[in-house]
Amino acid sequence: MRGAVLYGPRDVRFEEREDPKIIEPTDAIIRIAATCVCGSDLWPFRGIEQLSRPQPVGHEYVGIVEDIGSEVKNVGVGDFVVGSFVISDNTCEICRAGYQSRCVHGEFVAQTIGTQSELARIPLADGTLVATPGMPDEDLIPSLLAASDVLGTGWFGAAAAKTGPGKTVAVVGDGAVGLCAVLAAKQMGAERIIAMSRHSDRQKLAREFGATDIVTERGEEGVARIKDMTNGLGAHSVVEAVGTQEAFMQAVHATRPGGHMGFVGVNYEVHVSGLEIFFAQIHLLGGPAPVRRFLPELIDLIWNRRINPGKVFDLTLPLDQVAEGYRAMDERRAIKTLLRP
Amino acid sequence: MRGAVLYGPRDVRFEEREDPKIIEPTDAIIRIAATCVCGSDLWPFRGIEQLSRPQPVGHEYVGIVEDIGSEVKNVGVGDFVVGSFVISDNTCEICRAGYQSRCVHGEFVAQTIGTQSELARIPLADGTLVATPGMPDEDLIPSLLAASDVLGTGWFGAAAAKTGPGKTVAVVGDGAVGLCAVLAAKQMGAERIIAMSRHSDRQKLAREFGATDIVTERGEEGVARIKDMTNGLGAHSVVEAVGTQEAFMQAVHATRPGGHMGFVGVNYEVHVSGLEIFFAQIHLLGGPAPVRRFLPELIDLIWNRRINPGKVFDLTLPLDQVAEGYRAMDERRAIKTLLRP
Repeated sequence: MRGAVLYGPRDVRFEEREDPKIIEPTDAIIRIAATCVCGSDLWPFRGIEQLSRPQPVGHEYVGIVEDIGSEVKNVGVGDFVVGSFVISDNTCEICRAGYQSRCVHGEFVAQTIGTQSELARIPLADGTLVATPGMPDEDLIPSLLAASDVLGTGWFGAAAAKTGPGKTVAVVGDGAVGLCAVLAAKQMGAERIIAMSRHSDRQKLAREFGATDIVTERGEEGVARIKDMTNGLGAHSVVEAVGTQEAFMQAVHATRPGGHMGFVGVNYEVHVSGLEIFFAQIHLLGGPAPVRRFLPELIDLIWNRRINPGKVFDLTLPLDQVAEGYRAMDERRAIKTLLRP
Repeated sequence: MRGAVLYGPRDVRFEEREDPKIIEPTDAIIRIAATCVCGSDLWPFRGIEQLSRPQPVGHEYVGIVEDIGSEVKNVGVGDFVVGSFVISDNTCEICRAGYQSRCVHGEFVAQTIGTQSELARIPLADGTLVATPGMPDEDLIPSLLAASDVLGTGWFGAAAAKTGPGKTVAVVGDGAVGLCAVLAAKQMGAERIIAMSRHSDRQKLAREFGATDIVTERGEEGVARIKDMTNGLGAHSVVEAVGTQEAFMQAVHATRPGGHMGFVGVNYEVHVSGLEIFFAQIHLLGGPAPVRRFLPELIDLIWNRRINPGKVFDLTLPLDQVAEGYRAMDERRAIKTLLRP
């Protein structure tokens, strides 16, 4: 089969890779129907996350099961499936508590598998994959693919920030994850949803996803605007979906005392002083999203056309042009690139 | 009246200060029945927190109301009262949400009033003070005084760490606050309470307060012991009651993914990398405890002799020996010093 391999900074190659095979009886092999490029893929692409060797890339995927190991029971050959970007058994104590992204048998798809490819071996298939009710209409595929990471991640951010009825929610970051957090806050019944964005196309999508207000200012100016809008208190719920120092502190400062901040931007370069988070006195929860927790609900919402997160994809390319997909996102010409084998 | 004033590092003087008077109609003047020295008083005493001028010190107090302003309704002259170390109106939106330590009209008693004195003016008396059901027996006074800060702070730490039935709780720090967090976890119904302590007298009190296990190792060795005791997962709930870098990271690493860490040690010198708290994937909540939220319940438990947090005081001195009280704690000769005017 063919798949994408990252050799070093800005060097993604689409090349022949060995066909994946069932290794463990809990594995499944899926034929990728659609995959995409993630904001977090840009970290190694830009060389900020170092690689020790050429690495297969990609961790978002939907596809059709081609083969299963002898112990796989929840998905069968021919099923259309959506999977999380973290492998999980979904039975350990951590999974049962809803933190499948920290499963005791967990591994990152990005680090070991690479789904920007024609086929992929998914370990612990029963605990990682969820089958759709049937073969999806073509127009549902982008949204189902979004559920695999960006929607699930925005959803987790919104859940970690305890969005809900009566709450004012601010979302820092207007990338695909931030936009999906807006959508999630809307679904969770938030009263007011403030998208922090300075790009008109993204503002438009944020409005469509449920944002009631747009704030274009950043950093402490952005914080001041949020305070102005909330009687000087700050938002009840803030989602940080960027991962930079400025965005992280903007989120900390925009959250009211006793409020909740969910942070889902991978924050490689963020450093926080203890006193900042002590005196902010806010609830903090971040990390790789336990997408598997949300998948059944998200698939149901998409299947019934109640949400359309697939709109975050504004560029679709054939998989063999994966390198251009990275470049378009790196240069901010695209919010998110969908790839079709 | 006489009171303690900190002039600089290790220079506490007991001297004549002006008698406090009603300034605002919401003020009360109380005659201090007992006060004490807090672990956090040691930060300016040691010069780690810098002072710009000589400052009255002390923020823990119980006493008898001597005078009230014209608008005070909830406490009257002659009442025995317990107050929080943070002034709060207890009516603003932040107070009503339970974060009275971040009241929009809040101020720190430590920074403006100083209760290591014979009298004190307490602003916003209705929102800050709680009267006991009557004049307390002498033996209850240390416990009521503890409610003013260390018990309330340990309680907040345990609440922030979501201790409760079925939970394994680890407490980092065996000072008065850590010991009170053990007591709180016990009251909240935790299944297993692990006190991290290497001092035999404090271990003894921790056991008395409800600890089921003692871990003497610190840092990553301490973390390994907690993991050993929890199927490799870490504790559900961890209370950090020290404030150093080592203790903070010990607490982060001892908390299982999806678990909760309450941090109540004032963490002047702690610096956290974003990635550490991202991949730890734990709920974090810290800050100055909203003691006022808990005071009615704590007073009730003490009044009915269901808890005896006053045992954290292992040194009692007359108020005029306040400087010796600081030294005894600084040199770890005492867990906590009670002062009687």
